[in-house]
Amino acid sequence: MQDMTHDLLPEGLSDRLPPLAAEAMRVTRAMNDVLAGHGYDPVQPPMVEFERSLASRMAGTERRRMVRFVDPASLRTLALRTDMTVQVGRIAATGLKDAPRPLRLSYAGQVLLLKGDGLEPERERLQVGAEIVGNDTVAAASESVVVAIEALKAAGATDISVDFTLPDLVDTLAAEALPLPTAAIPTVRRELDAKDAGSLVAAGGAAYLPLLYATGPFDSAIAKLAAIDASEALATRLEGLKQIAARIGDSARLTLDPTERHGFEYQSWFGFTIYAAGVRGALGRGGTYRITSEGGHDEAATGFSLYPDPLIARSAGSASKDRLFLPLGHDAAVAARLRMIGWHTVAALDESDDAAKLGCTHVLHGAEPHKL
Amino acid sequence: MQDMTHDLLPEGLSDRLPPLAAEAMRVTRAMNDVLAGHGYDPVQPPMVEFERSLASRMAGTERRRMVRFVDPASLRTLALRTDMTVQVGRIAATGLKDAPRPLRLSYAGQVLLLKGDGLEPERERLQVGAEIVGNDTVAAASESVVVAIEALKAAGATDISVDFTLPDLVDTLAAEALPLPTAAIPTVRRELDAKDAGSLVAAGGAAYLPLLYATGPFDSAIAKLAAIDASEALATRLEGLKQIAARIGDSARLTLDPTERHGFEYQSWFGFTIYAAGVRGALGRGGTYRITSEGGHDEAATGFSLYPDPLIARSAGSASKDRLFLPLGHDAAVAARLRMIGWHTVAALDESDDAAKLGCTHVLHGAEPHKL
Repeated sequence: MQDMTHDLLPEGLSDRLPPLAAEAMRVTRAMNDVLAGHGYDPVQPPMVEFERSLASRMAGTERRRMVRFVDPASLRTLALRTDMTVQVGRIAATGLKDAPRPLRLSYAGQVLLLKGDGLEPERERLQVGAEIVGNDTVAAASESVVVAIEALKAAGATDISVDFTLPDLVDTLAAEALPLPTAAIPTVRRELDAKDAGSLVAAGGAAYLPLLYATGPFDSAIAKLAAIDASEALATRLEGLKQIAARIGDSARLTLDPTERHGFEYQSWFGFTIYAAGVRGALGRGGTYRITSEGGHDEAATGFSLYPDPLIARSAGSASKDRLFLPLGHDAAVAARLRMIGWHTVAALDESDDAAKLGCTHVLHGAEPHKL
Repeated sequence: MQDMTHDLLPEGLSDRLPPLAAEAMRVTRAMNDVLAGHGYDPVQPPMVEFERSLASRMAGTERRRMVRFVDPASLRTLALRTDMTVQVGRIAATGLKDAPRPLRLSYAGQVLLLKGDGLEPERERLQVGAEIVGNDTVAAASESVVVAIEALKAAGATDISVDFTLPDLVDTLAAEALPLPTAAIPTVRRELDAKDAGSLVAAGGAAYLPLLYATGPFDSAIAKLAAIDASEALATRLEGLKQIAARIGDSARLTLDPTERHGFEYQSWFGFTIYAAGVRGALGRGGTYRITSEGGHDEAATGFSLYPDPLIARSAGSASKDRLFLPLGHDAAVAARLRMIGWHTVAALDESDDAAKLGCTHVLHGAEPHKL
């Protein structure tokens, strides 16, 4: 015999019930409104695409974590999206190739993994994001961080902190200031990301050791990084980070971890991770990158993706609302007028319907709502 | 060589680009607001479930049209949802089993088919619906039709018509008024649905022939049906239809096709299909039914599902909006205040950004938007 209560849904998948589903809708709307307010136009790509399109572009998606199946129409492999950024890149490189730049696009939708992992058992998540296509300057990076913070605040996040990184730091330094054999670059990059000083030295990256300590609160970490950078190979990057930090001001706590690479494999000069109070793990990531395609498209871009599900789970029940019970025989026109001004109504279907049991706070008497 | 332009997305799947994606968001919000206004609480089931759950419940979903795959965690077969009604039924029978009845639930989300068919090539659709769990009376049926009409109007539908049917008509008549051998019931039902008079007579359903002509505008069709129903086996059903029609009033054109079964295989005494001007095919369906589960749950319900995609495609570009260009060096606090009162802003990232080219209608001069 199966245990019905534990066996209703596959591991890592769940129903969102009232009042959380209403809160999820509110959060999504609030975030979409912030993105629209900053001039981002929504796009809605399909849930499913050719696996090749989803796997071949810039995002760090692993094929083995995709739900894949054979398309009975084309006999080609299709996959469910695991990351909408890839889809927005495809749209920018094809359908909106000729739209004026910078092109600001936003998206919000469900993404699905074949399986969760230890830290993140959920297989389905809401992804909300915004991309500036055709620009990866400090101005674009600043806008991206500011809009991400504002979107999360609209979603109810508090005490936001942003961690900056420099994804191409090793490549930049290895070119001149701290020369490395080409073959050593990936290893040095990896050991810095892993913060493994011993392996870093063993890989020939002793000169990179001080980078491991140029981390922490933004102002002190960037001063340390500047001190390391005697040849000023990083000067424009550091100046860029300072400008972005100035734009953010005191709307978020800022930290710097210049060697962080995990999650930024495809970013160019700038990356950021965003956190909020009471939420374990990151709420999203962003940065500068390039959109490329097999057709030869190659274009700078800046953007971010947010995963607001943990915020929704946290705010349970905060969205409770007045509800007006409409007794049998009520005036339908009066009820319609009250809905127009924002009332949520619950109409009696038979004599047994009970206003209080159905969660109503008010009852309609004639043309007037009376408090229960 | 592949044709890149035709080869970007699988057949039956497409991107929604600006301005249609914004219109899709507006339509979804408007429909959700109508459902919330009538006291329906949203639920959000996952995109994926055990195939068994999705296929075993009441909806008319064909297994072979589902995207299915093996769950690496449970090694059981999972499927992408093709119909959210089934999921809402599961929720009502399990997670919300003990919530007070009538339980009003709403939902809005993407559903996906493995393949389209000749008439409907699309594989992905937006489904929006509302269910009243625990009641299948005339009052519930009336509310369902009224709310469906209101939701479609909010989505921009005009000139709405509703076609009523009586899904269990043959069963009701065969019980006494127009007796049939049990074995003949499914055939008579099928030939009536197919409107095939010859096969109907051949199947022993000659007495049912007049039903084929009790169709058309509601008032005349119901008069014909009453004339056929000498033994008054249908009396309560006909009275119910009249009461529903009275509730709808002149908000939609009404027709009756009492033998229509296609799409209503799981409905009980009442079904309806809803259409609008300029949209080929139905925009949705609803009716009364029963929610049952392997665990022994058995409960009356009434509801509808709408598929608003054709309305969105039709309203292209209607949502254009003022946009305010923010020149380099603008006052960020002024811009934030203008967004607060509803402006959509587009900030210059460098000197080359052109207000008109970026679709802006206004430019910020100091603290004032000036028309371009």
